[in-house]
Amino acid sequence: MQNARSEIKALTFDVFGTVVDWYSSIVAEGEKFGDTHGIDIDWAQFALKWRAGYGPAMDKVRRGELPWQNIDALHRLILDSLLTEFKIVGLSEADKGHLNQVWHRLKPWPDAISGLERLRKRYIVATLSNGNVALLTNMAKFAGLPWDCILSAELTGHYKPDPEVYQTAAVLLGLSPSEVMMVAAHPGDLRAAQVVGFQTALVPRPLEYGPGRAQEVKAHPLDLVASDFNKLADLLGIA
Amino acid sequence: MQNARSEIKALTFDVFGTVVDWYSSIVAEGEKFGDTHGIDIDWAQFALKWRAGYGPAMDKVRRGELPWQNIDALHRLILDSLLTEFKIVGLSEADKGHLNQVWHRLKPWPDAISGLERLRKRYIVATLSNGNVALLTNMAKFAGLPWDCILSAELTGHYKPDPEVYQTAAVLLGLSPSEVMMVAAHPGDLRAAQVVGFQTALVPRPLEYGPGRAQEVKAHPLDLVASDFNKLADLLGIA
Repeated sequence: MQNARSEIKALTFDVFGTVVDWYSSIVAEGEKFGDTHGIDIDWAQFALKWRAGYGPAMDKVRRGELPWQNIDALHRLILDSLLTEFKIVGLSEADKGHLNQVWHRLKPWPDAISGLERLRKRYIVATLSNGNVALLTNMAKFAGLPWDCILSAELTGHYKPDPEVYQTAAVLLGLSPSEVMMVAAHPGDLRAAQVVGFQTALVPRPLEYGPGRAQEVKAHPLDLVASDFNKLADLLGIA
Repeated sequence: MQNARSEIKALTFDVFGTVVDWYSSIVAEGEKFGDTHGIDIDWAQFALKWRAGYGPAMDKVRRGELPWQNIDALHRLILDSLLTEFKIVGLSEADKGHLNQVWHRLKPWPDAISGLERLRKRYIVATLSNGNVALLTNMAKFAGLPWDCILSAELTGHYKPDPEVYQTAAVLLGLSPSEVMMVAAHPGDLRAAQVVGFQTALVPRPLEYGPGRAQEVKAHPLDLVASDFNKLADLLGIA
C-alpha cells in the first residue's frame, strides 16, 4: 500500500455529506425561512425528504427517463413536489428560487477547511460531486472551501456512480486513475471510483442525516479510513 | 453603462499573456534548461516561435484538420518541431515532458494576484483559457492564483474564439452572458465574447512578447480599459 499511496497526486472529494453538512444547514435556514414566511412545518423532515428525492431523480436521468439536467434543476423538481406535500402555498418565484439555492449555502463540517488546507499543501484538492459547477463554486465562496479545481458530474453529462464521471476527472487532471484518491463518506461512491482505478479514502460522517440517524458504512479492505479530514492528513503524513 | 456593469456576477480571464507572463517565464526557464543540458540557443526566439505555433495549431483543430487534443498535446507537437529546427538533440523523453510543462509554471504579472484578490471580494473570478484544466490548475497552484473556478476551452471541445467556449462558461456559472465580463489582453478574444453577450474589459499587456515588441491593441467603445488588474478593481469600485 505504501507504494500506491506515494503515487497520489490529487484528492477528489464527494461534497454533499462528505465536506458539507447539508442536514443541519437546511434545517437552520428552513426554520428561519419559515419564521419569515409564516410556515410552520418540521424542517428536519423537509430536509430529509429533499435529500431522499435526489438519488431517484438522478437515477431517472441516468436511465434516460429524464433528459440531462443539472442538480439545481433536479433540486427544484423535488422542491416543487415537497411544497405541495407540505402544503406550503403563496411563495413567490423569487422565494422558491432562493430556497432552492440553499444547496449553494451549505456549511462545512468543522474539520473540512483546516483539513483541506493541510491536504492541499501536497496534493491537488478538487471537488468531484454530482452538484453542478455553479453550485460548487458558489458554495466554495460562501463557505471558504479552498479547492484547487471544481470538477463536477455536470462536465461529463453523467451522474456518479457512472464510471464516466471518475474517468473524465482523471483525464481533466492529466493523471492516471491510480494517481487520484476519491474521498467520500459513502462507500458506493468509493466502490465506483475503485472500479475505474482510483485509490479511495472513507471518511464516515455519522451526523450526515442528523443526530441519532447514523447509517452503517462498511469500509473496503483497500480504503484508507479516517474520521475527519485532519485525520486523513495525519494518515497521509502531512504536517 | 452603469446599469450593465452593476449586473456583473463573474469575471472570466484569458490567461496566457493576460494573467501570466509566458515570454519571460519561458526565456528564464529555457536559459536554465540550456545551461544544464549544454544547449546554446536564443531562448527568446524559441519562446516566440513556440507561442507563434499555438494559434495555427488550434486553428487546425477548429477546422477539423486535427482531431480534438488539448493544449498540452499541441504544445508538444510544436515543441517537437522546434527541437528539430533549433537542432536540439539527445533530450530524454522525461526532459522533453518537463520542458513541455513549462506552460504549467508561468509567472503572473506583478499586479495579477493582488488584483484578483480584490476582484474576487465581489465577483466570481474564473479562468476562461484555451489552456487545459490540468495546466490551469497546476499553474494556479504554482503561481498562487486565487481562482474560484477553473474553466477551460477543454470543457467544450472547442477553442476560443469559437462561441461555444463563452456560451458554455456562462451556462456552467449559472449566469446569463450579460452577467459575465471577459477580461483579456487580446481584442479578438473580447470581440468573440461580446458577440455572445458578455461584457468586456481590455487589459493591454505591452510586455507580452518581450521588451520592445508591444503590439497595437485597439479597444472597442464598450470595453472597460484598465492598465492592470488593480486598476480594473478601481474602475469597478472595489476597495
